[in-house]
Amino acid sequence: MPERSLDAGSAVPGSARPAVRTVTVLGAGSWGTTFAKILADAGRDVTMWARRPEVAAEIAGQHTNSAYLPGATLPDNLTATSDAAAALDGPDAVVLAVPSQSLRDNLGRWRELLPADTILVSLAKGVELGTLKRMSQVVGEIAGVADDSVVVVAGPNLAKEIAAGQPAAGVFACGDHERAVAVQEAAFTSYFRPYTNNDVVGSELAGACKNVVALSCGIAAGLGFGANTVATLITRGLAETARLGVKLGADPMTFAGLAGVGDMVATCASPLSRNRTFGERIGRGETIEQAQEAVGGQVAEGVMSCRSIRDLAHGAGVDMPITDAMYRVCHEGSDPVTVGAELLGREQKPERM
Amino acid sequence: MPERSLDAGSAVPGSARPAVRTVTVLGAGSWGTTFAKILADAGRDVTMWARRPEVAAEIAGQHTNSAYLPGATLPDNLTATSDAAAALDGPDAVVLAVPSQSLRDNLGRWRELLPADTILVSLAKGVELGTLKRMSQVVGEIAGVADDSVVVVAGPNLAKEIAAGQPAAGVFACGDHERAVAVQEAAFTSYFRPYTNNDVVGSELAGACKNVVALSCGIAAGLGFGANTVATLITRGLAETARLGVKLGADPMTFAGLAGVGDMVATCASPLSRNRTFGERIGRGETIEQAQEAVGGQVAEGVMSCRSIRDLAHGAGVDMPITDAMYRVCHEGSDPVTVGAELLGREQKPERM
Repeated sequence: MPERSLDAGSAVPGSARPAVRTVTVLGAGSWGTTFAKILADAGRDVTMWARRPEVAAEIAGQHTNSAYLPGATLPDNLTATSDAAAALDGPDAVVLAVPSQSLRDNLGRWRELLPADTILVSLAKGVELGTLKRMSQVVGEIAGVADDSVVVVAGPNLAKEIAAGQPAAGVFACGDHERAVAVQEAAFTSYFRPYTNNDVVGSELAGACKNVVALSCGIAAGLGFGANTVATLITRGLAETARLGVKLGADPMTFAGLAGVGDMVATCASPLSRNRTFGERIGRGETIEQAQEAVGGQVAEGVMSCRSIRDLAHGAGVDMPITDAMYRVCHEGSDPVTVGAELLGREQKPERM
Repeated sequence: MPERSLDAGSAVPGSARPAVRTVTVLGAGSWGTTFAKILADAGRDVTMWARRPEVAAEIAGQHTNSAYLPGATLPDNLTATSDAAAALDGPDAVVLAVPSQSLRDNLGRWRELLPADTILVSLAKGVELGTLKRMSQVVGEIAGVADDSVVVVAGPNLAKEIAAGQPAAGVFACGDHERAVAVQEAAFTSYFRPYTNNDVVGSELAGACKNVVALSCGIAAGLGFGANTVATLITRGLAETARLGVKLGADPMTFAGLAGVGDMVATCASPLSRNRTFGERIGRGETIEQAQEAVGGQVAEGVMSCRSIRDLAHGAGVDMPITDAMYRVCHEGSDPVTVGAELLGREQKPERM
């Protein structure tokens, strides 16, 4: 699998690269908090916005976020507020760290507050229901900027492991290389190595589709299957993701790198992945509602995404059997055992790109 | 990641396809026994050869192999002997299921007994020390046949899971498509779906290199790192394997399919993988000798292979940092923590094909 050259980003003297000294992170979930910690550890002044005042107060006062990132101590140069206007007072970059299906509404409220020419960074991984837009497209539309000026963060990023200082790598994708490198420099620490690429479409689709495949891996595990079955689902899930991506203009090699294989394997194999865990409950016979209650009321991203990715694939004329199977299990009440047997039955046909 | 078309093998009327009705499996380890079970479940008459008479007697008499495949019941149409001449009396296909570094010696003893025109199938995954030959090359040399007439079995094949009837898929690679399809038809069961391809070089290298990467994932896990680090090692391990493969004539897409991603993920993620388990012991501070004793005296395949793959890469002028790191840990006594830190340090450079 050829790996595209990824620039690890040394400074280019004399270039028009924007400097990122202050960053605001909008959203205080586990990945948003971890990404804020990375930026602060890299020496940037970071302000987080949390919807709930008590979460903001805890982050600002005690340097912890016990609700979403228990066990982690946050750096002193990271503060927080629940006042979006205060949070958005002039940062060099703004990181959007809210769930993908609520990004449009949230960004609509923040639009007038965004500093002109600030660098927008998206952590959200999903495809919007209804519009079938990728997150950078939603940001472009609402913020009135070019879609590919948004810096998209992808790669194998399990928040709790990175917050614990375990070595990890990420991919920062942007059509404007200078913006990607500016954010890369702002997030470079001893434990987190960001790479840049210019394939926003592929990086975003890989991030969205992997949640659906992780759901399927969880279901397989919940049904009692082992690593062979999970490895086969990952391989075929990656292939159907690449089929969709290539049809929509992505570089096929993106799926062979950290944003593709890397994120897919981390999410599908880790017990820390919410999509994987959610799928395991379904595989053990729980309903979507029971699984949702058991994980604190939040539905897994893959449950939402399988509908929009399926619609996107149908519109593009791309066959995505695993995504279709997840849609039927999550939204049409199909039995996972029956759907699984049908997926296996498909294997008798030739496998194609 | 584009997935090459893999032929699932419907019969071609009127073609000169050899029929495989009787098969001999030489070697009674866990994968050899499982593969013999697949062939027998697919309706073939199967004879296994085991070096130890008591293992042969147990397989033939009790239909179990408690030493290498505990818990599995073998079909009635599978028998066994420790007499190689009896085992090799006229089968349509011969499956070579001995460890890669002993294949040359074993095959040398069996050479005169091999039926003319029998189909040779190789389950061995490795690169021979010293000669740096792939297993099909060793078979070709010793058996006096064309290397690419050997059918090479690859893919995510954890023996114990397949023996338990869990759904799995495999890749049968051969330069002679009719031979690959003949073996495919002989191994097609409800739980095991073989696909064919013609990339012997890529399929064999993927199978050999994955053991080395699994060793590195085990070491990372033993050092306390989680799924992010393992996912990064898998992604980069696959990239360095593809670099070597492409240089030696493999199709890059092989590494994106079941023989590449599929086998890599299954082996690196499963606690059933001997290479992964062996690596975990090293990561927890045991010496190679201690780890070897703990797993019953057998050294993991990746410990042997990292030397020959490193030599192959040096000869081909290909950079394989994970393989190099494993060589230094396993054969030069380097400390895994230091080597791991150096691997991470490399990440500051651009990633290249």
